[in-house]
Amino acid sequence: MTPPTSEPTRSAPVHAPSQHFPVTPGGDLLVGGIPLTRLAERVGSTPFYAYSRELLRQRVTELRAALPAAVELHYAMKANPMPAVVGFMAGLVNGIDVASAGELKVALDAGADPKDISFAGPGKRDAELRQALAAGVLVNVESLRELRVLAELQQALGLSARVALRVNPDFELKGSGMKMGGGPKQFGIDVDQVGAAMDLVRAGGLGFEGFHLFAGSQNLRAESICEAQRKSYELALRLAEGAPTPVKFLNLGGGFGIPYFPGEQRLDLAPIGANLDDICARAKTQLPLAAIVIELGRYFVGEAGLYVTRIVDRKVSCGQVFLVCDGGLNHHLSASGNFGQVIRKNYPATLVTRSGSSAEGGAREVASVVGPLCTPLDLLADRMNLPVAEVGDLAVIFQSGAYGASASPQAFLGHPVVTEVLV
Amino acid sequence: MTPPTSEPTRSAPVHAPSQHFPVTPGGDLLVGGIPLTRLAERVGSTPFYAYSRELLRQRVTELRAALPAAVELHYAMKANPMPAVVGFMAGLVNGIDVASAGELKVALDAGADPKDISFAGPGKRDAELRQALAAGVLVNVESLRELRVLAELQQALGLSARVALRVNPDFELKGSGMKMGGGPKQFGIDVDQVGAAMDLVRAGGLGFEGFHLFAGSQNLRAESICEAQRKSYELALRLAEGAPTPVKFLNLGGGFGIPYFPGEQRLDLAPIGANLDDICARAKTQLPLAAIVIELGRYFVGEAGLYVTRIVDRKVSCGQVFLVCDGGLNHHLSASGNFGQVIRKNYPATLVTRSGSSAEGGAREVASVVGPLCTPLDLLADRMNLPVAEVGDLAVIFQSGAYGASASPQAFLGHPVVTEVLV
Repeated sequence: MTPPTSEPTRSAPVHAPSQHFPVTPGGDLLVGGIPLTRLAERVGSTPFYAYSRELLRQRVTELRAALPAAVELHYAMKANPMPAVVGFMAGLVNGIDVASAGELKVALDAGADPKDISFAGPGKRDAELRQALAAGVLVNVESLRELRVLAELQQALGLSARVALRVNPDFELKGSGMKMGGGPKQFGIDVDQVGAAMDLVRAGGLGFEGFHLFAGSQNLRAESICEAQRKSYELALRLAEGAPTPVKFLNLGGGFGIPYFPGEQRLDLAPIGANLDDICARAKTQLPLAAIVIELGRYFVGEAGLYVTRIVDRKVSCGQVFLVCDGGLNHHLSASGNFGQVIRKNYPATLVTRSGSSAEGGAREVASVVGPLCTPLDLLADRMNLPVAEVGDLAVIFQSGAYGASASPQAFLGHPVVTEVLV
Repeated sequence: MTPPTSEPTRSAPVHAPSQHFPVTPGGDLLVGGIPLTRLAERVGSTPFYAYSRELLRQRVTELRAALPAAVELHYAMKANPMPAVVGFMAGLVNGIDVASAGELKVALDAGADPKDISFAGPGKRDAELRQALAAGVLVNVESLRELRVLAELQQALGLSARVALRVNPDFELKGSGMKMGGGPKQFGIDVDQVGAAMDLVRAGGLGFEGFHLFAGSQNLRAESICEAQRKSYELALRLAEGAPTPVKFLNLGGGFGIPYFPGEQRLDLAPIGANLDDICARAKTQLPLAAIVIELGRYFVGEAGLYVTRIVDRKVSCGQVFLVCDGGLNHHLSASGNFGQVIRKNYPATLVTRSGSSAEGGAREVASVVGPLCTPLDLLADRMNLPVAEVGDLAVIFQSGAYGASASPQAFLGHPVVTEVLV
């Protein structure tokens, strides 16, 4: 039997304060200049995700300033496919990367120009390749089969296919959250099969545009990213020798991470900018027609978003405070620690309270923020030091602009789906 | 650089053969007597989940035979909320447990009698409690707040609330996949707060029916389940002394697991039946009005379901075979190992091929089955020994009747949602 304890609960490691959403003197957060409590009234119900246009724009501006002017930025919309976000991003970046015919539809509806859309993803169905061909977008081809299908579809539809070869890099992105190169992978074409792929491009009369290399994602080490970019460039240069036409498109991937957990530092863009300066300088003579593309998803949108849920119950169990909210892992699986993480860690979080406890110097306590699901997995914040809160107050999870609503099991346990707003 | 290897890939540990879906001489699976390849044509598209009425019925029959006749069986529909499944189960079991107002609607639409529906879950919103009261179902109350709200709603609606107290057990279910008791928890009311809860029941004039104790889930050790049931019974007996009226309902929870991974054995029901015999015999005199309820979700439906996806591409990368399918973690998160598992293990799986390789003695190879998503997390079978398959063949994941479609991020990457059929 675990006896109730009167000792204060040990609290989790502490995050750096959020720099992105200012706090008012009363302890409210500002989202695009609007107090969060007011925004919640405007939305009309909780839970919701709020994404900030201002922060999205700032991030693109910051990247443009840090990277060479010649570098083109693509938004990988899988990170956040909300149509309003995709439309807004389409106006800021050079292209949109889609991962399915469903995403392709959203990108086209949002006004992205087909010439600036690329479509990557293993297991593209024949019907999806047909849609891509009809749309006139660039297909980042993942296998020899896709090349064969595209050649047939060109004939059937009387349209010209645009293809880039996605190559499975023969190296990995060191220290990456997700590795997508180095060793056997379902992604892209192995280097030793690229020759055969070029033969199929030629035989099928496909419109060759270049290469796509994506070694990994969610990396906070600039040096690892620089190394992967250099190796990707070298590999593309070597492969370009066997290409049917000059390279017009060279997607060096992304991998730029954002800090989620205590102790993590923001990615240093300066060395990446310098590295890309070198690459662009070399490309000017070695691949003179090639647009150098960096493809980012999470890095554009992750820090621009909040998940907001309302406290429905406040419970003390065995001396530990639980704030039970109206949303949880059904809307935000990754914050619950159940999506690719081996050890669960807290996302940065705060509470916005009506008592004033969320203002500077307000009363704080150690509390856990949980969702409404009947499973111990439904945990948003495990024993964090937070403002003292009551039923009706708001719980806020930062760094929630990427892989949130769309990457969560929204039907789980039959609760309402989450609302998303772009502010 | 990782060189391509010609050595055979090391294969994963091997599962016991599936006992639930017979294999035809040609290597097809039978689902409710229908060959899977024919069922796929009937469904008209892949991917899909197929659930077998015959297996659902068998499981209930088997449980009825193993447990005392007095034990009532509740289906926790969170495990599989497909309306047709809920309707079918409602005709077989004694009650349905719902976890949200959304599930309540499905249960009522499916024809479940409100008197046999119980509603558990932390963080019930006021609106949900109002709906439960209007429906006339039993509310498994998780906190003192819920009792206060129900008392107010009784007044407002002029209806009588039916409540059971969900108690946070002061012990845990040992060796459980998920622990929901023992120590601080968001579930139920701590034992030392039950007295205060009884006071609120009396003061509010709420209709008290009994107790709900749920110590954990997905347990394969009969002895641990028996121990938790005994402790739950003892605890309920102790708490019943302070109850305003005799106990009519005693939900001892569930926790019955099913085998997913190599080496796991099916749960032995015999000792659980004997244990419940003892409990029922004691209850006859000690709690003479109480229905003894066992609440199960996964155990009823988990083994009765298959996930079926079609191979879209066959790739060999660095000597390893990848079968890329038209569905993956977007439909079946738990099989990908990304839902509560610390170390990923393969669910049992097979392939149904047109070449005959899935028949006994057919050609086999080590292959990985992956989904269409652009993430290395999208892995359904990691290096398993499987029939040699081609594009167009079917991949089948067993033990997929629970926590599949509804517990997966179906919008992730914009692929079509999965179809479900009850056969």
